[in-house]
Amino acid sequence: MIKTDILIIGAGPTGLFTVFEAGLLKLKCHLIDALPQPGGQCSEIYPKKPIYDIPAYPEILAGDLVDRLMEQIKPFEPGFTLGERADALEKQDDGSFIVTTNKGTKHHASVVVIAGGLGSFEPRKPLISNISDFEDKGVAYMIKDPEVYRNKKVVIAGGGDSALDWAIYLADVASEVSLVHRRNEFRGALDSVEKASELAKLGKIQLFTEAEVKELHGENELKAVVLKHNDETKEPTYVETDNFIPLFGLSPKLGPIGNWGLEIEKNAIKVNNAKDYQTNIPGVFAIGDVNTYPGKLKLILSGFHEAAVMCQFAYQIINPDKRFVMKYTTVGGIQGFDGSKREAKKEVVQSIA
Amino acid sequence: MIKTDILIIGAGPTGLFTVFEAGLLKLKCHLIDALPQPGGQCSEIYPKKPIYDIPAYPEILAGDLVDRLMEQIKPFEPGFTLGERADALEKQDDGSFIVTTNKGTKHHASVVVIAGGLGSFEPRKPLISNISDFEDKGVAYMIKDPEVYRNKKVVIAGGGDSALDWAIYLADVASEVSLVHRRNEFRGALDSVEKASELAKLGKIQLFTEAEVKELHGENELKAVVLKHNDETKEPTYVETDNFIPLFGLSPKLGPIGNWGLEIEKNAIKVNNAKDYQTNIPGVFAIGDVNTYPGKLKLILSGFHEAAVMCQFAYQIINPDKRFVMKYTTVGGIQGFDGSKREAKKEVVQSIA
Ligand SMILES: Cc1cc2nc3c(=O)[nH]c(=O)nc-3n(C[C@H](O)[C@H](O)[C@H](O)COP(=O)(O)OP(=O)(O)OC[C@H]3O[C@@H](n4cnc5c(N)ncnc54)[C@H](O)[C@@H]3O)c2cc1C
Ligand SMILES: Cc1cc2nc3c(=O)[nH]c(=O)nc-3n(C[C@H](O)[C@H](O)[C@H](O)COP(=O)(O)OP(=O)(O)OC[C@H]3O[C@@H](n4cnc5c(N)ncnc54)[C@H](O)[C@@H]3O)c2cc1C
Repeated sequence: MIKTDILIIGAGPTGLFTVFEAGLLKLKCHLIDALPQPGGQCSEIYPKKPIYDIPAYPEILAGDLVDRLMEQIKPFEPGFTLGERADALEKQDDGSFIVTTNKGTKHHASVVVIAGGLGSFEPRKPLISNISDFEDKGVAYMIKDPEVYRNKKVVIAGGGDSALDWAIYLADVASEVSLVHRRNEFRGALDSVEKASELAKLGKIQLFTEAEVKELHGENELKAVVLKHNDETKEPTYVETDNFIPLFGLSPKLGPIGNWGLEIEKNAIKVNNAKDYQTNIPGVFAIGDVNTYPGKLKLILSGFHEAAVMCQFAYQIINPDKRFVMKYTTVGGIQGFDGSKREAKKEVVQSIA
Repeated sequence: MIKTDILIIGAGPTGLFTVFEAGLLKLKCHLIDALPQPGGQCSEIYPKKPIYDIPAYPEILAGDLVDRLMEQIKPFEPGFTLGERADALEKQDDGSFIVTTNKGTKHHASVVVIAGGLGSFEPRKPLISNISDFEDKGVAYMIKDPEVYRNKKVVIAGGGDSALDWAIYLADVASEVSLVHRRNEFRGALDSVEKASELAKLGKIQLFTEAEVKELHGENELKAVVLKHNDETKEPTYVETDNFIPLFGLSPKLGPIGNWGLEIEKNAIKVNNAKDYQTNIPGVFAIGDVNTYPGKLKLILSGFHEAAVMCQFAYQIINPDKRFVMKYTTVGGIQGFDGSKREAKKEVVQSIA
């Protein structure tokens, strides 16, 4: 059981910044995200695109924004449960919560913050009748740890950046890499397309275009896939492999959160924006893209504000007997859980005469 | 008469970022500030101090924050009325407003946004009975344009950064600079103290410590000041001068805004935080440190969010017949009034085989 003060569901920009605001109040955070990496939409959908409306950044790439946030929260040492979806929320008799993921990991916290954005990013799965039989037995929809594939045979399917980038990466790790795409054109960064093309020429990637994986074979574990070609006059190709990784993109789904008894409106969670961004379940807050209220703007900067406001009320739940006192970081510095303390420099007082 | 869509009172971080959010909606802004420079508290009180809680800036100097905001709003070409205090607000029959400053400058706008922070920064004045007779006739409490002092005699009083920095700067501009301070110790950045000390040794600054300006002489215009020494056995010193500039710091006062019929609570303006940050006067909004509501945090990041939300409602007042549609800057780019347009780069689609 993972224990923390504030359990944050969603490690997008809003969830990440919550760690900072909570940290200033000496509250410890743990984050759950269905994705294998933090950053939410910014990391998953548009890491290389510039954003122009982050205050005081005339321009910043979405991926760099996430990097800066990770750096900013580092002193507060948040915990992460990545690549798992929060599936169940149970309120305990003492008012605290246990949140369980689809992989069974349990988290205990006084306060739960849903910063789930558009929802948990779920993989788009190819239509192959027996694919679920092989999930976690050779079939995976995202790559958490590439070392798992060392000296294994891997078939990747897809025509976007993820498929290209992982095929390139695994070319040096796996014993054999095949890349299957149903068209001839790839949709990815120019240098990835060139690099994959080069590796194909060197025989380090086996390239199958205008083809799709249609059958999976094996008992208990995956042993081979069968590709059918767009050109039906061509014979299907049988490829022996240990792993099949379809990377067809992820699409966000509110998913199980929708069944937790929260008031939902237009696929978003209703909160009290006049006060604390709390939901209809006391002790459960919702901030960032996942919430809704009159005048709501799905902007990153709004999630930041909502996190700051919400944390002071979480503080009051966790410390009912203490008075909340806001301190400016400029004046009080940042005091991390590691005991480090950074303080603003004092001015110099000096005699001139 | 200056005409604009949104008149912003206060050019602190909140007022500045409002220009950006309004600009995205093609609304033009003009800002009034009592200070001679933009940036509010960040520029006036702590430009050299680091802030740690600006999202995605693990650390940034307050002065640099203002510079980045100025850069970010540049494409939208805001107008500025600096060094003047907004004194009067008059609602017109058509619902628009005229705002007049203490210097008589008039501004006409459809919407007024008060981003006045802790209030208008007003100079602390020395206790000299006839000082008001010489205001704008040799006596000034802030320096807007140092060229005014070219080849003039100047007496500066004060012991902080402003007094030191301006004495140093004017040593090369004025024909004669005297710096008067009632103590022997200065409270300023180390290099400023050293530089002033050096200039004093070279005779480019006349230094009077442990002394205070106690009398002003002249008819219509200032001609001389009289310094009294802490050591009362010393004779008072008579210094001929064209200008006397006491730089004893500025302190913020809500001031005339308090008499505009706005609902005030604890020196701040009450707003509807459940919706649009509007005040009790329709068409007048209050955002940033100047407003209050349950759970209000006087944080820079909160002013940013309030600005973004407020602008969509200002848009509806100014364009009652148009539908508000939010676009992500990543997708829509920034379209400035100069006709420039910056758009996100498109991904590359390329054939690999
Ligand atoms: C193409 C594009 C361009 C954009 N441009 C801009 C822009 O210019 N400016 C701007 O301000 N905004 C922009 N946005 C919107 C911005 O990305 C979002 O406002 C922001 O990402 C919201 O952050 P968040 O942390 O609230 O949610 P998200 O970034 O959506 O993160 C939520 C995270 O929660 C996880 N999650 C949800 N449910 C669960 C669960 N049950 N279990 C585990 N994990 C879960 C998800 O996997 C996800 O990682 C853009 C969005 C897109 C798609
Ligand atoms: C020492 C110190 C450290 C701080 N540290 C932090 C920190 O670490 N993090 C953080 O988030 N915040 C911090 N703050 C607070 C932060 O500076 C304020 O929240 C922020 O400046 C508010 O911005 P604003 O634009 O709302 O108002 P302000 O910055 O106060 O600007 C308001 C402007 O309006 C002008 N004005 C007001 N009335 C009138 C009028 N009638 N006519 C003309 N002009 C007028 C004023 O002259 C002023 O320039 C700190 C403040 C101080 C003093």
